[in-house]
Amino acid sequence: MSQGAWLYELGQQLRVDAVRAADAAGSGHPTSSMSAADLMAVLAARHLRYDFDDPHSPENDHLVFSKGHASPLLYALYKACGAVSDTELLSYRRRGSRLEGHPTPRLPWVEVATGSLGQGLPVGVGMALAGMHLDRLPYRVWVLCGDSELTEGSVWEAMEYAGDSGLGNLTAILDINRLGQRGPTRHGWDLDAYQRRAAAFGWNTIEIDGHDTAAIDDAYAQAEASPERPTAIIARTVKGAGASAVANQEGAHGKPLSDAEAAIAELGGVRDNRVTVTRPEAGHQPHSFPEGRLELPSYDTGSQTATRSAFGEAVTALGHARGDVVVLDGEVADSTRAQYFAKAHPERFFECYIAEQQMVAAAVGMQVRGWVPYAATFAAFFSRAYDFIRMAAISRANIKLVGSHAGVAIGQDGPSQMGLEDIAALRAVHGSVVLHPCDGNSTARLTAAMADHHGITYLRTMRADTPVLYGPDETFEIGGSKLPRSSDADQATVVSAGTTVHEALRAADILEREGIPLRVVDAYSIKPVDAATLRRAAADTGRIVVAEDHWPEGGLGDAVLDVFADTRPSPRLMKLAVSSMPASATPDEQLAEARIDAESIAEAVRAMVRQEEGASV
Amino acid sequence: MSQGAWLYELGQQLRVDAVRAADAAGSGHPTSSMSAADLMAVLAARHLRYDFDDPHSPENDHLVFSKGHASPLLYALYKACGAVSDTELLSYRRRGSRLEGHPTPRLPWVEVATGSLGQGLPVGVGMALAGMHLDRLPYRVWVLCGDSELTEGSVWEAMEYAGDSGLGNLTAILDINRLGQRGPTRHGWDLDAYQRRAAAFGWNTIEIDGHDTAAIDDAYAQAEASPERPTAIIARTVKGAGASAVANQEGAHGKPLSDAEAAIAELGGVRDNRVTVTRPEAGHQPHSFPEGRLELPSYDTGSQTATRSAFGEAVTALGHARGDVVVLDGEVADSTRAQYFAKAHPERFFECYIAEQQMVAAAVGMQVRGWVPYAATFAAFFSRAYDFIRMAAISRANIKLVGSHAGVAIGQDGPSQMGLEDIAALRAVHGSVVLHPCDGNSTARLTAAMADHHGITYLRTMRADTPVLYGPDETFEIGGSKLPRSSDADQATVVSAGTTVHEALRAADILEREGIPLRVVDAYSIKPVDAATLRRAAADTGRIVVAEDHWPEGGLGDAVLDVFADTRPSPRLMKLAVSSMPASATPDEQLAEARIDAESIAEAVRAMVRQEEGASV
Repeated sequence: MSQGAWLYELGQQLRVDAVRAADAAGSGHPTSSMSAADLMAVLAARHLRYDFDDPHSPENDHLVFSKGHASPLLYALYKACGAVSDTELLSYRRRGSRLEGHPTPRLPWVEVATGSLGQGLPVGVGMALAGMHLDRLPYRVWVLCGDSELTEGSVWEAMEYAGDSGLGNLTAILDINRLGQRGPTRHGWDLDAYQRRAAAFGWNTIEIDGHDTAAIDDAYAQAEASPERPTAIIARTVKGAGASAVANQEGAHGKPLSDAEAAIAELGGVRDNRVTVTRPEAGHQPHSFPEGRLELPSYDTGSQTATRSAFGEAVTALGHARGDVVVLDGEVADSTRAQYFAKAHPERFFECYIAEQQMVAAAVGMQVRGWVPYAATFAAFFSRAYDFIRMAAISRANIKLVGSHAGVAIGQDGPSQMGLEDIAALRAVHGSVVLHPCDGNSTARLTAAMADHHGITYLRTMRADTPVLYGPDETFEIGGSKLPRSSDADQATVVSAGTTVHEALRAADILEREGIPLRVVDAYSIKPVDAATLRRAAADTGRIVVAEDHWPEGGLGDAVLDVFADTRPSPRLMKLAVSSMPASATPDEQLAEARIDAESIAEAVRAMVRQEEGASV
Repeated sequence: MSQGAWLYELGQQLRVDAVRAADAAGSGHPTSSMSAADLMAVLAARHLRYDFDDPHSPENDHLVFSKGHASPLLYALYKACGAVSDTELLSYRRRGSRLEGHPTPRLPWVEVATGSLGQGLPVGVGMALAGMHLDRLPYRVWVLCGDSELTEGSVWEAMEYAGDSGLGNLTAILDINRLGQRGPTRHGWDLDAYQRRAAAFGWNTIEIDGHDTAAIDDAYAQAEASPERPTAIIARTVKGAGASAVANQEGAHGKPLSDAEAAIAELGGVRDNRVTVTRPEAGHQPHSFPEGRLELPSYDTGSQTATRSAFGEAVTALGHARGDVVVLDGEVADSTRAQYFAKAHPERFFECYIAEQQMVAAAVGMQVRGWVPYAATFAAFFSRAYDFIRMAAISRANIKLVGSHAGVAIGQDGPSQMGLEDIAALRAVHGSVVLHPCDGNSTARLTAAMADHHGITYLRTMRADTPVLYGPDETFEIGGSKLPRSSDADQATVVSAGTTVHEALRAADILEREGIPLRVVDAYSIKPVDAATLRRAAADTGRIVVAEDHWPEGGLGDAVLDVFADTRPSPRLMKLAVSSMPASATPDEQLAEARIDAESIAEAVRAMVRQEEGASV
């Protein structure tokens, strides 16, 4: 059989298997799979360098299905490569099957979850950056994109980063099948529209017929021969290609073919061809950076430092100790203090400019290769990347997010710059850890602890200097807390974090003079929260005030309430949080206005104590 | 004085006043203001059509400072226009001042808050769409963008929408001052880099020296003469222009000048020139669409319908009744059922394609002009636009968000498509309303109620058909709830919403047979939640199980816990929520797996009842 005929056969097989998988499942996206079948057949047979027996080999290429709904095609490809059986293929979308509706890393060959569109290319940029600047290995990154998803701004963040960085190891395969979910895409088959855009962003562009296997083969070869620029292969394809009942038809998105049998017959019937994917050339070792002893910064108790600065200094120290730590910035490194790392470890610092989606996506891409990325911007601006963080959880990704400028305490800049919903958002990410230390030494320790914890870990830092409460040798751990003030006589407990720890301590001073001893919990680990310490405080003092520099919903207050949901007797509990829209004011004015300052905390405690005294009269 | 000399003088005055404002405040961004001073001077003096005495005039042009940190320039401009006094200018960033660190609608001439970069242009697209397709008025939209923010993908979503839609009434003024916060921007003064990108996206482009008032004047005239394409004026400027100590210097971002006096002297000293902004040509009336009687769809109790379909039918009915209702789609209208509206009211339907940031931004832009936008996509995908929703709250915007495909109940598609953090995220938006009805009639009523409520209102709908519980004449209101099952003998209460209402009712059937009468609260209004009904249920039954198709953090469970934070005696409370990462499975399998199905709810109630019986022995 000629190569062309064999590739055609393989493409047809992939289509048949995509149709069969969706048919067996009773749902799925066969037509979106069929348009890209030839593109994937040629890639697997002729250009991909991958060892299915060793999916974690550092030398492997990376294949990302940014159009994750084309999962039937991906799984059909895995079958053709001998990685999954026909039986498993037909378990698609069933409970317990690894072949989920959209790809996830439950399959060893899937490195990142996709299914929220426009994410695969930015993640691929992260992989390509890792290949070029971290691993320094010749692996290539191939990203299959749909045309509908090219409307997502995140795709253009990726186009900009890749084009500007000259990521010649990255190829975007644009499956221009003209039809979205609802109807025609904006540009239909106007390949030039995509070509102009990608070229303007500095990409090498190639327009082809996406069903012409020779043209596809040639395009991949051109991409491989373009070491200095990423390549966009703009492929004109037909949605549902090969099955006349659905080919190029509106209304055929996201459902099995009504007559699968007829389509399979038209596609030439079931086949079981095998493609041998070429293994990567052996003998390359990933680059590694020098490692040393961890010497975290330490701060004298009683001195002042900003937690953001402590993060910057700690992550820099961590960079000296660990070669796998990298830092990504959203063009605010001078504010987040990621700048310190940039100066010490320029080779492991990535300036993503103001593109938070790309920043988080790049972190996800890099952790695929075992790098430990810290991505830092203002706490408020992680809201820009929330979908990427959500998807990172489905990817089981190991990323560290650091949000500075928490809360109203930033002062004059006003609400657009204040992280006030970040705890709620990050708590509601599956498996996440949320940390919010109040001083330099705790921040330094937790910055280091994050590196040792696998998963999505969020560190919230503050703009202003705050007093150093803890000595440099105290321990801080995920799930822990501290009691900077406590006695057996405590009549109430204030649960606090970050800025409000210091306000709570001042409240304790005020109340001490009034004969009301107060316990202060520094709940620096908001998720998981230290339930044991909270329960003990409740049992000891019976009254709890939670004070936080955050909206009332979903933050520390709710985390504490959750601990006592089913506790009997439950403590009396009051939440102090930011409940009206802030404007500009000094930090102290802001805290007072929001009623989370020392005086407001003291007043809340007084009211609680008085109310019960009144009730008991 | 020649026109050129007068415009130069005005530009210098704006610089002086920006420097003075930041100096008085002790913070702010004077250098970012100075680069754009001439651009704004020429705009105000020669091209803007605006009535400062009637900021809500439908005929006014719209000016958006997408680079919101250049607020000193905006306020200096307001002073030059006679809108604010010099005294108020110098109140910049002080507590109580309307002149916040970043512009907000506390000032009557500011229509949307900015300060999170890359949002002004997408919002401006919404305003321009309103002008062209809704109001049908000749007003123009002018958006001042910084160069740093052009890295945000949302800018390219806007570029794509505007270019493709031929929004000739939109002008983006790109202030290319070469320097970002941290250092040089990606493209520096390579104006062609921006030109290529904007042109590729279908824009008319003009490159100018942004300090040449004649060139600026000519560029605006060209923009006005381009009715069929939006115009990008790409202006080479100098950050800190006019003050040699900071001009074109790194490290001078976001702080007052160290020697303001010297800079003011260099800029020619304090002036008090007034510019008379031309009022818009009078006599135009905004277009209005026909209005009729509201005839909401109604569903027979006992029949089945999907809440997403009820939304689609209700918003379509609302469109017949109210001419101000518009719908925006993220290319999933067939799934969200916004499609029904598209068919009935094509002139008020806006296909934003898969660009959720642009979709929400367009809604924000349209509501500025009094339109009542419903923006619909999958619940999960509002996470993509979370920063825009956060900023919409600061804009005091009146937008309706509708998220379909809530929770694990969607079944086979898997976690990437499941809204599982949407309630947490939307609750943590200041002033928001979060609704999650369980049947057709409640959804229809609440869809209509949303239109009457000013603010950010979120409706969460479900994919699957569910039984119609309520008659079409029952009332549903924001802050309300229903008791589909209740008696004086109830031993426990299940608080539920959406899918879990139906599971709770089935649990009640199971438990009734076991002699445990159960109350079921349909908490369709999650924020505000119906605290009175919950308190009554707690007092009556003492035991509460909250069941929700959402992560455990920040959802209905936390809203219920919050009600009982300070209640004595507090009820025993257990939260059932999705606590492990779902995969593909049928909807029923998913609910069982997540332990939020009827059997799991019944078991939780049983355990609670048993535990106390055991304890009381």
